[in-house]
Amino acid sequence: MNQAPRVTVWNEFRHEKTDDSVREVYPDGIHEAIAAPLRERGFQVRTATLDDPAHGLSSDVLDNTDVLIWWGHVAHDEVTDDTVRAVVNRVWSGMGLIVLHSAHFSKVFKSLMGTSCDLKWREAGERERIWTVDPGHPIAAGVGECIVLDHEEMYGEHFDIPAPDELVFVSWFQGGEVFRSGCAYHRGRGKVFYFRPGHETHPTYRHKDVQRVIENAVLWAGQAAGAVPTYGNHQPEEPLTR
Amino acid sequence: MNQAPRVTVWNEFRHEKTDDSVREVYPDGIHEAIAAPLRERGFQVRTATLDDPAHGLSSDVLDNTDVLIWWGHVAHDEVTDDTVRAVVNRVWSGMGLIVLHSAHFSKVFKSLMGTSCDLKWREAGERERIWTVDPGHPIAAGVGECIVLDHEEMYGEHFDIPAPDELVFVSWFQGGEVFRSGCAYHRGRGKVFYFRPGHETHPTYRHKDVQRVIENAVLWAGQAAGAVPTYGNHQPEEPLTR
Amino acid sequence: MNQAPRVTVWNEFRHEKTDDSVREVYPDGIHEAIAAPLRERGFQVRTATLDDPAHGLSSDVLDNTDVLIWWGHVAHDEVTDDTVRAVVNRVWSGMGLIVLHSAHFSKVFKSLMGTSCDLKWREAGERERIWTVDPGHPIAAGVGECIVLDHEEMYGEHFDIPAPDELVFVSWFQGGEVFRSGCAYHRGRGKVFYFRPGHETHPTYRHKDVQRVIENAVLWAGQAAGAVPTYGNHQPEEPLTR
Amino acid sequence: MNQAPRVTVWNEFRHEKTDDSVREVYPDGIHEAIAAPLRERGFQVRTATLDDPAHGLSSDVLDNTDVLIWWGHVAHDEVTDDTVRAVVNRVWSGMGLIVLHSAHFSKVFKSLMGTSCDLKWREAGERERIWTVDPGHPIAAGVGECIVLDHEEMYGEHFDIPAPDELVFVSWFQGGEVFRSGCAYHRGRGKVFYFRPGHETHPTYRHKDVQRVIENAVLWAGQAAGAVPTYGNHQPEEPLTR
Repeated sequence: MNQAPRVTVWNEFRHEKTDDSVREVYPDGIHEAIAAPLRERGFQVRTATLDDPAHGLSSDVLDNTDVLIWWGHVAHDEVTDDTVRAVVNRVWSGMGLIVLHSAHFSKVFKSLMGTSCDLKWREAGERERIWTVDPGHPIAAGVGECIVLDHEEMYGEHFDIPAPDELVFVSWFQGGEVFRSGCAYHRGRGKVFYFRPGHETHPTYRHKDVQRVIENAVLWAGQAAGAVPTYGNHQPEEPLTR
Repeated sequence: MNQAPRVTVWNEFRHEKTDDSVREVYPDGIHEAIAAPLRERGFQVRTATLDDPAHGLSSDVLDNTDVLIWWGHVAHDEVTDDTVRAVVNRVWSGMGLIVLHSAHFSKVFKSLMGTSCDLKWREAGERERIWTVDPGHPIAAGVGECIVLDHEEMYGEHFDIPAPDELVFVSWFQGGEVFRSGCAYHRGRGKVFYFRPGHETHPTYRHKDVQRVIENAVLWAGQAAGAVPTYGNHQPEEPLTR
Repeated sequence: MNQAPRVTVWNEFRHEKTDDSVREVYPDGIHEAIAAPLRERGFQVRTATLDDPAHGLSSDVLDNTDVLIWWGHVAHDEVTDDTVRAVVNRVWSGMGLIVLHSAHFSKVFKSLMGTSCDLKWREAGERERIWTVDPGHPIAAGVGECIVLDHEEMYGEHFDIPAPDELVFVSWFQGGEVFRSGCAYHRGRGKVFYFRPGHETHPTYRHKDVQRVIENAVLWAGQAAGAVPTYGNHQPEEPLTR
Repeated sequence: MNQAPRVTVWNEFRHEKTDDSVREVYPDGIHEAIAAPLRERGFQVRTATLDDPAHGLSSDVLDNTDVLIWWGHVAHDEVTDDTVRAVVNRVWSGMGLIVLHSAHFSKVFKSLMGTSCDLKWREAGERERIWTVDPGHPIAAGVGECIVLDHEEMYGEHFDIPAPDELVFVSWFQGGEVFRSGCAYHRGRGKVFYFRPGHETHPTYRHKDVQRVIENAVLWAGQAAGAVPTYGNHQPEEPLTR
């Protein structure tokens, strides 16, 4: 990929409309907080939300998206099955997907994982330390050994996901739990990265290191992929004489 | 697991009713050919088929199944979504699942993989060589370096699956293709093994080494698992004073 | 493997001779504390220590060992290269190896990993919580979701190892660190399990859950493996006519 | 990494001096055949050979190498242990390493793998088909589903390596064997890619697709990595009061 990936930031955008404490942190919505630093770095970024027509994810939008970022929480069930199928198919065809925080329970992520994606959680605004466990991974570039978030929601193991193809980060929580918080997967020709932090009541997406991880993940998930596989009945490459 | 795993062999059982050439090879159905050698080894084995009430997979049957073996081909769509959900949930809870040959396209397997599970194929009765690539794996025990099947359907890459947690076998085909033919996965507390061979017109399930691999896979997938994870809101293990 | 694996517990056995606080915890040596519960479960167990002739690991002993357990700390360099080569070769040939705690820096483990195996550490007797992240793994059987050790040495990331083939446990430490503390690998026909806890001044190997994990690991590493691979010049299986 | 990686191509360079049939194929040495297309693409490339002082790999050269490519065959043992240690240390620190063909038996590769790296082989000039099994991987970009080499040496399983972190290619051989021919690993902060083809008597490194794979591998292995981990005694991040 010689050009910067074209990014679409999808946000459920409900908390921000109904909850003052969230609106205070993210007055323009979580999607704008995620989009802004990517735009500053020169990426071509659009946003889409649940209440847009077709959830903002028409065929045309998806066809022009190299990497889709997904944040959702209270309205996973309102995302239509058609949209889920369209997104999953695009991932299989090579679109990158970055799944943030509570979107672990999005239909899109669960469909791609094949597991319940369940976990432990606690809203106590406690400290999180995100440790790098694969310092050679490009998604870890430019951040220190450990990202400290002073106030976050806790997510704890067991996180019911397939073992990541590449485990990049593991979180420590003040209350005694650990969590695999940076998980990379290949699905078809597409790449998927789950990144844990980002509770709606904390300004996590304004944290420079969190922004850097998301930017790295966009570059990783937007990398050029190999040939489009062909499937179905296939003539022999070699003679079948015995 | 101190006792032998309780096995249920599920077969679509349609080819055998409608196609003479299949009935000739498997007069009692593919399920009986798979079940017989397991019974001889002392496993407790029952069978179930698509046209049984509830596809033969009532809650009671599933609750008493440690490892489920699945063969299907032409009627994947007739398996009800309720059954698919029940099987997937049992796998997440610890039931082993062995998916054979054309069941790569079963709803159950696709749901657990999160990919299209598509592949190349050719019915030419050509030679297949199944090479062991993980000689330390218990599923490879007791068979030689290479299992040779003189006549089999070809399955070729790209096989659109997640990278296996453990890749045990890779197949060579006379016509020029390769295939990841023994693929082990962990999903929740359950273990899943995909094993490629077993086209309905060839007596593959009467081959001693194929039978041994299936037996090994049953033992592997029926191993005792760890604690039942708890999910949801979780009180701190440690004080949250700052 | 129909019979219980034959286990050899190897211990450096130096701390216990020179340090009263260690002798108090392990009067007969760490090896005896590890061996005792395995013997109670019916395993055939012998012990060997650094200062025995040939470090207690003659060809005869190794030839009759299905699983070797290794504890070392201050005298890694005193283990002869011949012994290291012999152990590594046995692992490649199918012997299981369980590497405990400070043996992360043993020559044997470093040779099998191909990395520095370095880590962060702190001797402060703090609390460790060992969380299961793969509840389907047989090594996690019979223990709860989390093993709590009230006083242990801290090991922290980055732990410079290859990404484990199977990551079973992740530890949380009071002081703010995390650690991949249960790591399973395949090397040749052999299986290797690294298990973190067991500082010499704490009675960790008397903890029932730690004993259970080691027992599970012995069973996992002692499983029957596949065929002995052949290497070198190989005649064609198929005719090479073009 | 904003700039093109600085590449050093290391070649044993012995066959070309003593064997007419090799000199005919690679008159300037295999290293120049590998270097030329990389230079054309704008990479900064130098070469080094076994018989250069310090094997051409002085500290200064290694310090200014982002990705090292390695070809060797008959003289692995002549590479000094000091050079092996220096290269391995550089990989742990983040240098990329691309290991080609018979360099599977190089000291450098064996040290990084921790296995024997043995395999089956046959010099019969037979056909090889290199199938992509991870079409989302950047190393597979720009080549079709299958690279066909009309005349190559055969390498067959079992290939005694750790299971690759990412398996990109699997080869089919006319004589009946398969081989994991594109294997990606993380070791410390560095990335390692093993790529099978390239026997000295065939013009494999002049094949456009083989050149493209090597170029892709250079870009992949030269990607920016994360923070330099710190090791050793570590003060608590959090208070240890109980």
